[in-house]
Amino acid sequence: MRIDRAALADLARGAAFLGSGGGGDPYYGLLLAEAALDRCGGFDLIAPSALSDDALVAPCGWIGAPTVSVEKLPNGGETVAGLRRLEQVMGRRIDAVLPVEIGGGNGLAPFVAAAELGVPVVDCDGMGRAFPESQMVIFNIRGLPACPSVLTSACGSLTVIETDDNLTHERIARGLSISLGGIAHMVEYPLTGAQAKHHSIPGSVSAAIAIGAAIRTARAERADPFKALAAALRATGLYPHCLTLFDGKIVDLERETRGGFSIGKVTIDGFGGEGRMEVLFQNENLQASEGGRVRAMVPDLITIMDRETADTITTERLKYGQRVKVVAASAPSMLRDAAALSLVGPAAFGLGPDFTPIEALNPVETA
Amino acid sequence: MRIDRAALADLARGAAFLGSGGGGDPYYGLLLAEAALDRCGGFDLIAPSALSDDALVAPCGWIGAPTVSVEKLPNGGETVAGLRRLEQVMGRRIDAVLPVEIGGGNGLAPFVAAAELGVPVVDCDGMGRAFPESQMVIFNIRGLPACPSVLTSACGSLTVIETDDNLTHERIARGLSISLGGIAHMVEYPLTGAQAKHHSIPGSVSAAIAIGAAIRTARAERADPFKALAAALRATGLYPHCLTLFDGKIVDLERETRGGFSIGKVTIDGFGGEGRMEVLFQNENLQASEGGRVRAMVPDLITIMDRETADTITTERLKYGQRVKVVAASAPSMLRDAAALSLVGPAAFGLGPDFTPIEALNPVETA
Repeated sequence: MRIDRAALADLARGAAFLGSGGGGDPYYGLLLAEAALDRCGGFDLIAPSALSDDALVAPCGWIGAPTVSVEKLPNGGETVAGLRRLEQVMGRRIDAVLPVEIGGGNGLAPFVAAAELGVPVVDCDGMGRAFPESQMVIFNIRGLPACPSVLTSACGSLTVIETDDNLTHERIARGLSISLGGIAHMVEYPLTGAQAKHHSIPGSVSAAIAIGAAIRTARAERADPFKALAAALRATGLYPHCLTLFDGKIVDLERETRGGFSIGKVTIDGFGGEGRMEVLFQNENLQASEGGRVRAMVPDLITIMDRETADTITTERLKYGQRVKVVAASAPSMLRDAAALSLVGPAAFGLGPDFTPIEALNPVETA
Repeated sequence: MRIDRAALADLARGAAFLGSGGGGDPYYGLLLAEAALDRCGGFDLIAPSALSDDALVAPCGWIGAPTVSVEKLPNGGETVAGLRRLEQVMGRRIDAVLPVEIGGGNGLAPFVAAAELGVPVVDCDGMGRAFPESQMVIFNIRGLPACPSVLTSACGSLTVIETDDNLTHERIARGLSISLGGIAHMVEYPLTGAQAKHHSIPGSVSAAIAIGAAIRTARAERADPFKALAAALRATGLYPHCLTLFDGKIVDLERETRGGFSIGKVTIDGFGGEGRMEVLFQNENLQASEGGRVRAMVPDLITIMDRETADTITTERLKYGQRVKVVAASAPSMLRDAAALSLVGPAAFGLGPDFTPIEALNPVETA
C-alpha cells in the first residue's frame, strides 16, 4: 500500500483516536511526515507477512510527557539518527520500521525515517494503542528484549542502552527523557521479521488510516462522525466494540508533569446537569468513572473527542470548557489475556478494580 | 613503577586525602583492587611521557552520591565492562587507563580494570583531587570531548552516551546515575596519548601514594601525621601549600541526597569553646568559614580528618561528635587559572566570594 498525503492525514486522525488520549498530538508528526513525503514521493506500507523471517525491523517512537512535546519541538532528525546507530550496533542494515505504538503522534514517527532510509513501514505496532511506559508493549509481554535501544534528542545527543531487564530499560530511558528536557526519541525492541509477524498487533497502521478516513468522510457528508468511527473500528476486526460513554463539558482539570509523565484527572459534567464523569490519565486515559461506577478501564481505549468534529483531544490539550464526548473501544484481544493484563491492566497503574471489558461494563452499546 | 599491596594501601590513604571529602570512601575500591592484585600479581604505573602519542587512554571513575555508595555496592565488573565497550565503540584496544579523579575511591577505580585488561595505569588524572560534576575536569577545561562515554551499573546495564556538549553529557550521566540507584561507573573523555600528556594533572597517582606513605610512616614512628602530610604534599610539587585550618568536634551535620549528590554543611566547634568552623559540601568540601570569614574555598582542597589518626573522613562518613582537624591544601596550579576557575571555582557552585588561594587567606601556614 502506497501512503500518500491524504492517507497520512487519515493516519494522523485515526492514530489520535487510538492513542487513548496519549502518544502526543499528531500535528507535528504529520508536518514532518508531509515534508518527508514531499522530498521522497510516498511511503510503502507492507503487511508483516511480507517480511522475511530474518529481516531486521526497528520499532520507533517518542518517550516522555506529551505536555512537554507541545513546547519542545523535535529537530526532525532524531528518528533517522537513532536508526542509523542501531544499524551500527547490530552490524547490519534495517529492513523495515514500525511504530512502537500506533497511538497519537507516535503512529507517524516511523514514516519520516522510512522515507530517509528508503525502507517500508510495517502494518503493525507494539501496543495497538498508546501506553505511557515503554515496557507496556506486546514485545515485552511476549518476552522479547528491549535492548539494544537508541535514544536521541533534539539537542543532538545520542544514547545506546543495553540491559537484560526491560523494566530497568524503562527506568533508564525514562530518566534519560527527563534529563533531556522531558521528551526524546527511542528506537527499541529491535525485532526479526519472524518476531514482528508473530508478536505485534497486526494491521494497526491500516486500521488507523481507515478510522481516520471514516471520520473525514462522515464530516464531508454531514453524517455523524461518531457513528462512522464506531463502524470503522468494528470493521478493523481489532477493535470490535465501541461506545460513547459520556457527553458533556469539561468542568475541572488537574494535570501535572511528574516523573516524566503527564498525570492528572479531568472532570466532565453532563449537559443539563445529568451526571458527572471523571477520567484518570497518565499520558493516556486510564479509567473513566461515572458516579463512582467504573465504565471503562485500561487496556480498553478511552478517548476524549470534540463532540462536534470528533477531533481527538489528547491529554495535553484538555482544557476547561471543552464540549466533549468520551468514547471507549475494546482493546485488541492480545492485550486482554492474563499475561498482558499483568503488564497493561489496571493493577499495573495502581488502579482497581480488576479489568472488566467495556462490553461487560456497558451491555448496551451506543454510538 | 610496580604497584604492590603496600602501595595500594598507601594510594587509598593518600587518595582519600586528595578527595577533599569526596570521591567516595576508598575502602571498597581498595578491597576490589587487592583482589585483582591477588589474581594478577601487581599493576604497572607509568609516566604520561611513556605513552605513545596515538595511544588510546581511558579515564575511569564512579559518578553519583557518595552517601549511596556506602550501601549500594559495586558488582566488581563495571569498569571492565565499560572499557570493553569503549574499545568496541572506538574500534581499537585501550592502551592504558587512568583515574578521572585521583580523589577518594575513584583514585583506585582504574586498577581493577588495568589488571583484567593487562594494561598500565597512567600516573595522572583529570582533577588532581575530586569534584562533584563530571565536566569539572581538566580535559573539559582544555576543550576535549567527554564522549563517547560508557556508563555501567551493578545491575549489569550499560549505556553509551554521545553528545558534543560536555555539560549536556554531565546532565545525561547524572540523570542516569539517579535512574540506576544513585551510583554508576563511567568511562569518559577517551584521550590520545598526546592529550593525556599535555592535558592531565601529571604525577597525581604517585603523589597520592607518597602522601599515604607519609601518613603511614608517621603513625608507625609515633610522629605527627599532619606534619608528615604537609611535608609530603609540598614534596609532590603539585600541592605546595598545606595548613590545618581548624581543630575541634563536629557539633552539627546537615546532609541530604539531592539531585544525585550528597549536599550539606558540617559545623565544628573548637575545643574549649574557641571558635566555630562551617564547611559546605556537594560530595566534596567546597568552602570552610570561621566566624563568617572564608578560610578556604574550592578548588583548593579542604579535607576533614580524624585528629588522632589523620584518617580522612569523607563527606558521607561525617558524624556528630567526631574529633577532627580541617586541613587545606592548595590546588594544582592548572586548576587556578581563569579558564579553570570558571568551571571549578566558587562561582561554579553558586558560592561567593571569588577565589582567593589559601596561602593568601591564611598568610601564616601551620601544620
